[in-house]
Amino acid sequence: MTSRITIDGGKVLEFSPGPTLLEILREGGVKTEAPCGGKGICGKCRVSLKGDGGPVTDEEKAFLSSEDIAEGVRLSCLCRPVGDVAVSLSDQEEKGSAILTDGNRPDFEICPAIGSVPISIPRPEIRDGMSLLDHLESVAGPLKPDASLVRRIPQAFRSKEVTAVFHKDSLIDLIPERDPELYGLAVDVGTTTVVVSLISLKTGETVGSASEINPQKDFGLDVISRIERCETFPTGLEDLHDAIISCLDRLVDKVCSDKGTSRKRIYEMAIGSNATMTSLLLGVHPWSLGRAPFSPVLRRGMTVPSVDLGVELAPGARAYVLPGVSAYIGSDIVAGMVATELMEDRGIRLFIDIGTNGEIVLSDRGRLSACSCAAGPALEGMNISCGMRASDGAVESVRLNESFAELGVIGGGTPRGLCGSAILDVLSEVVRLEMVGKTGRLKPGPMIAEENGKRALVLRERDPRLTVTQGDLRQVQLARGAILSGFISLLEANDLTMADIDQVLVAGQFGRHLSVDSLTGSGLIPMELKERITYCGNTSGAGAAMCLLSRKARDDAERLSDMVDYVELSVLESYDRLFSRCLQFEVSR
Amino acid sequence: MTSRITIDGGKVLEFSPGPTLLEILREGGVKTEAPCGGKGICGKCRVSLKGDGGPVTDEEKAFLSSEDIAEGVRLSCLCRPVGDVAVSLSDQEEKGSAILTDGNRPDFEICPAIGSVPISIPRPEIRDGMSLLDHLESVAGPLKPDASLVRRIPQAFRSKEVTAVFHKDSLIDLIPERDPELYGLAVDVGTTTVVVSLISLKTGETVGSASEINPQKDFGLDVISRIERCETFPTGLEDLHDAIISCLDRLVDKVCSDKGTSRKRIYEMAIGSNATMTSLLLGVHPWSLGRAPFSPVLRRGMTVPSVDLGVELAPGARAYVLPGVSAYIGSDIVAGMVATELMEDRGIRLFIDIGTNGEIVLSDRGRLSACSCAAGPALEGMNISCGMRASDGAVESVRLNESFAELGVIGGGTPRGLCGSAILDVLSEVVRLEMVGKTGRLKPGPMIAEENGKRALVLRERDPRLTVTQGDLRQVQLARGAILSGFISLLEANDLTMADIDQVLVAGQFGRHLSVDSLTGSGLIPMELKERITYCGNTSGAGAAMCLLSRKARDDAERLSDMVDYVELSVLESYDRLFSRCLQFEVSR
Repeated sequence: MTSRITIDGGKVLEFSPGPTLLEILREGGVKTEAPCGGKGICGKCRVSLKGDGGPVTDEEKAFLSSEDIAEGVRLSCLCRPVGDVAVSLSDQEEKGSAILTDGNRPDFEICPAIGSVPISIPRPEIRDGMSLLDHLESVAGPLKPDASLVRRIPQAFRSKEVTAVFHKDSLIDLIPERDPELYGLAVDVGTTTVVVSLISLKTGETVGSASEINPQKDFGLDVISRIERCETFPTGLEDLHDAIISCLDRLVDKVCSDKGTSRKRIYEMAIGSNATMTSLLLGVHPWSLGRAPFSPVLRRGMTVPSVDLGVELAPGARAYVLPGVSAYIGSDIVAGMVATELMEDRGIRLFIDIGTNGEIVLSDRGRLSACSCAAGPALEGMNISCGMRASDGAVESVRLNESFAELGVIGGGTPRGLCGSAILDVLSEVVRLEMVGKTGRLKPGPMIAEENGKRALVLRERDPRLTVTQGDLRQVQLARGAILSGFISLLEANDLTMADIDQVLVAGQFGRHLSVDSLTGSGLIPMELKERITYCGNTSGAGAAMCLLSRKARDDAERLSDMVDYVELSVLESYDRLFSRCLQFEVSR
Repeated sequence: MTSRITIDGGKVLEFSPGPTLLEILREGGVKTEAPCGGKGICGKCRVSLKGDGGPVTDEEKAFLSSEDIAEGVRLSCLCRPVGDVAVSLSDQEEKGSAILTDGNRPDFEICPAIGSVPISIPRPEIRDGMSLLDHLESVAGPLKPDASLVRRIPQAFRSKEVTAVFHKDSLIDLIPERDPELYGLAVDVGTTTVVVSLISLKTGETVGSASEINPQKDFGLDVISRIERCETFPTGLEDLHDAIISCLDRLVDKVCSDKGTSRKRIYEMAIGSNATMTSLLLGVHPWSLGRAPFSPVLRRGMTVPSVDLGVELAPGARAYVLPGVSAYIGSDIVAGMVATELMEDRGIRLFIDIGTNGEIVLSDRGRLSACSCAAGPALEGMNISCGMRASDGAVESVRLNESFAELGVIGGGTPRGLCGSAILDVLSEVVRLEMVGKTGRLKPGPMIAEENGKRALVLRERDPRLTVTQGDLRQVQLARGAILSGFISLLEANDLTMADIDQVLVAGQFGRHLSVDSLTGSGLIPMELKERITYCGNTSGAGAAMCLLSRKARDDAERLSDMVDYVELSVLESYDRLFSRCLQFEVSR
């Protein structure tokens, strides 16, 4: 006996009752959000359902209000429909969030790994006994051609004007044209967002950019759940690899069609990403990143034909994956070090990339050490009762007054939830207004409600009601503690104090949305560093672009990978005590 | 308005009248023979058709008898059905002809390019700061891993016993097993037939073989029509490449399932083929082989990942394409030289591979020269009125008596047509019995009929009637003249005479079917060499197997490619006169 699901009034799937709605949707090829990977622990896979969706489970009740249930809201990973149903997925967050695509980059000389030169093709003669390849070598020097290059030779011998394209010293393509425009891609593969920039290899100019939410989110929001996915599902690795490759493919299509460029003229992509994303991108099983001793498969950079990753660009095009440092200091951070020239002696500088993982690098006059701290997804608006990502309708800033909250909403209009910066603002504000004690517990007072025996800060009464619960505050408190303690550990390991720091560089997608007031007010960055904070944007993308355009930057990246002293916080003797201390608030400053 | 075609009582295709039957069948993915590539010039794409197949064209009438037409036989490339029809393709020649898979090979030391060694995988420790690749290098030495190898690392670090597989000095795979059996393939890609042998890389033993008619025949029977196909059809090259790759894929499946071996344990294939087949196999456009100055794209051998050709074998598996000499002395002939050790000083030896092209190599005490002559398809049973390939039902030998013909039929049973050896036998017999004059014209006499004003030799009166027309004899005469003149030219170029020749080595699929009597009786090989003829089987496959199993053989092949002096017959001053002379028969010996 089969039943039918109608999706957003359009597509219809048939199913036999038994599996969860999420399983049915995925089986039918319908993309839907399930941040925790369908484990029933995040409560984010909400759908509106009409018809017989089966009994509402206790697990669902933990996430849904009675209004939700009355309105037919269900969690797709927990609900098992038994008859014909209609579901609406449009309640889920839209694509096309505002994603940071640019990062500042220092001045550097453009000297890409890809170069081109016009060559004149000889005319074979009868009885010369030479192959076309022999003739080509007579003008281009000895070659070790791969299949891709050999396939390009016959056409070249039919053309009058031919441009030879080299990757370093290797001939990789022959273009039957004079002086063609060549392009490269700088790619930033984040756990949450993917940014691709199309860059002219001649001028170094960024011609266009495109970005997307990383579609691997359907298999888990953070790197750990994606690693687990690879461990538990036979096709897990393949699914995650395919997801990121088809995402890159779409982004290349988009940026090319926006700019009227052919992907057949893109000869290299340089990629910065954390170690798990690097692994999934290469199609390499990430199990060793998910358990002690947390070894990455690769540290040094790697150049492979882009087709070996599954991305078709120009014939012979290469993909350069930047080097990383450790399992939790990936090539995105190495790219950041390149973009901020952290190996230069410019005093004491602290580089911090805030996200689900917080990565911190200390440059002590060019000597580098780094640590990584698990901040959790709270700062990205996840695992928070009214949380959402930074897209239209998200509250991005919060200012508390005596008895009400001023909310800044992305795109204006009605607020739909709170993104990470709002959560951090709230933490900053409740500390400023002494609405919490030293341990972070909310005190009774205006705007504070009791719900199910727990206190919550009410930011908006209704349509929709937006609250920050004590539990939410705990999440942010843990994130803050993790980052702050990493910060301090690095300084201690280098016998430095806060006062020694000349500059704090805030990098990354998330950092950009956080005001200095919010960063310091929440205690994520100590107040005394307030005047020394510099935002440096998407340094992963900027560093990848530099490695694309400059062989020196690429050499720097490779050297950096070995230069950085990685500090593993969990094995530091005093770390646990430090972390506990960092959880507390210095309410009175 | 659409109509329907029912094929062999099974598959149904819908079509709108307009295109030819061949076009409709191909569009619908139905494999069917069309040796001339659908140009309407070979008359071989016969089908039985019921229903409204449209008017029989004049071109068809040139190929079909009135009985044929009465019985509904049509040529699929010329017939344009207008209504519902049923066609029978089973009249076409079956697959699975008897194909020569083995060749003699000399003794040699087994030392393949692929080697394996057990390694012990280190155990990473926390804070060692090393990647899995770093650890691997600590036991395997510095590596330049490609994506395929990197993908194999995580699994290796979960295994206790790991075998490292090398191609020459490069690590290409890690097998989580102790002492696994590794295999290779020797591949002989002929214009007409494809043979794959599965070979143990440890023992050198041929474990199994499989063969198929080259499916590129659907696009043209000889190399020239396949080159033309690439020139005239936008997807020509792609179609021909796909055809041979999927053929190899099927043969690998077959030979593996026959032997219970996994293709994931096949680490290399060594391929011998003529220059056009090499080009199509690599996906390289063959235009330069089809017109003066007839340059091959490659001469030297080439090793590429087998996946770059589209053949998935073991992770990291390689494909080695043997070197060739010129556009018409391909790697199949180089393989033959390796298998017959033609570069050794063993007197004066003449190597001859008879087919649509006849390739002849002269070894003057190890000094090599070669020529190629366009024999045409007659010797393969093509372009002959009652011709067919050497498969079940083909007459393979003919002995003429006073008034009747003794016919030897492959598989016994009713004869269906004549294959190449029968045609050559007929030539030999009509010369022996002086049924032709010096110019090859049939004299009137028993078994000679007049048809449409032309004489024909009647081998069988009816069911079916089998004749050899004057035109057929002319075809064989031309083939004989081409080969004989090549033969003599090579000797003349080396100041040698027939008497100097110590040995004639007859290689290849076709040669094996020809008796010494037939070869010499027809004059293809001069009678005085009769006692010096040696058959050496499928030397292309044997040489490929040697190159698979022996690095020395591979080095020999590479050196051979440069050692052979290629004699281009068409530019020899006296060639035309010689060729005319070779067309004639010395009827009285």
